[in-house]
Amino acid sequence: MSHSAPGRPPARPLSQTDRTRHRRLREQGSLDRSDLDTILAAGFVCHLGVTVDGNPLVIPTVFGSDGTSLYFHGSVAGRSLVASPTAEVCVTVTHIDGLVLARSVFEHGVNYRSAMIFGIPRLVTDPEEKWAGLRCLTEQATPGQWDYARQPTRKELAATALLALSLDEASVKIRTGAPDDADTPDAELGLWAGVLPLRAHWGDLEPDPTLPAHITAPPHLTNRQGVSAFPS
Amino acid sequence: MSHSAPGRPPARPLSQTDRTRHRRLREQGSLDRSDLDTILAAGFVCHLGVTVDGNPLVIPTVFGSDGTSLYFHGSVAGRSLVASPTAEVCVTVTHIDGLVLARSVFEHGVNYRSAMIFGIPRLVTDPEEKWAGLRCLTEQATPGQWDYARQPTRKELAATALLALSLDEASVKIRTGAPDDADTPDAELGLWAGVLPLRAHWGDLEPDPTLPAHITAPPHLTNRQGVSAFPS
Repeated sequence: MSHSAPGRPPARPLSQTDRTRHRRLREQGSLDRSDLDTILAAGFVCHLGVTVDGNPLVIPTVFGSDGTSLYFHGSVAGRSLVASPTAEVCVTVTHIDGLVLARSVFEHGVNYRSAMIFGIPRLVTDPEEKWAGLRCLTEQATPGQWDYARQPTRKELAATALLALSLDEASVKIRTGAPDDADTPDAELGLWAGVLPLRAHWGDLEPDPTLPAHITAPPHLTNRQGVSAFPS
Repeated sequence: MSHSAPGRPPARPLSQTDRTRHRRLREQGSLDRSDLDTILAAGFVCHLGVTVDGNPLVIPTVFGSDGTSLYFHGSVAGRSLVASPTAEVCVTVTHIDGLVLARSVFEHGVNYRSAMIFGIPRLVTDPEEKWAGLRCLTEQATPGQWDYARQPTRKELAATALLALSLDEASVKIRTGAPDDADTPDAELGLWAGVLPLRAHWGDLEPDPTLPAHITAPPHLTNRQGVSAFPS
């Protein structure tokens, strides 16, 4: 994944608002909508930030994204989100790609891809959208699983609060590549510098110990063993 | 990593406050201080939640923990944190261990280890603590690197704002193991159920392209190649 080419506006720019304008480490900001889509598509867990009694609360939770909205469970922050879905949230999705090991401690950093989405989530009440949103959320983590597993009953649907957050206001930051101090006097120190990459992949399936031996895993799960997670 | 044994109070219990008391999915809460320590020790990136103009902001950033405090850079949220270090923050550290694939979509979940720390961060001004805190932060991500790389100059130290957050108020949640629907009628559906584990490890070092060929990587970095990241 690379930054937008300098001087060339991205084909589908992200909107710029007071919150999404990059103030710091400007070179790491991306205004390319496709970078947002790629970062979201590569993940399935976000960190949801809400304000409770005036104080921040950051909750890890699963999400699904259909390119327009980000769906997540309304129950994660207790009843507060569903009871007052007029409150702003910040949803952050981060993939860590490696450690940036510079000549000086001061220049050390992390290669990463991160998206922040801001807005007021909407409680999904339309039955068709709720079905589609839950499907999106399930398929984001495990493609093929929605059609394989038992789908929700009416009672289960009613017991699930689903929230949708528009992707309209988002901020994307990406850092890739080598350290930035190759052209400083520190390069004369004779120290090694570079990147220690972090890799993630899906391991071997672990059957439920109670599962009868004749029940084998379906191809959409066996095919995933050994495959990279969070691809860029 | 496992839950505390039922009925037996942990040796070093975490404090219980209104914010850290587990209301939801109670079985996933841990009150064991050693679980907090292990989760923090296994990571180096947290999601920092702050309130800016009344709205939540969730920022991924590196941290270090010495068992008493969590250290992070004060610059990450712009000037707001350093200018007003009287504001509450929530720092969340999450490790994702796998997908929990149940018989029904409704029972799907994630195996994870997560810690939330609440409090008002303190700007570190004492030079010795600042040095130790920055060392802690660097060593958490890359053990051995503080003594290998060029350490901060007085000017670099002055340009770095370091914040310390006490670990006194924390909430830990852990989920491990198989899906929970083995003893429901869904077990009769004949569907595969179990866990798809997520593994992370450090890859092969990637030297800075400008690095002279005779500069080889030190053992504390070469030894890390292929090693598991975020161990439980």
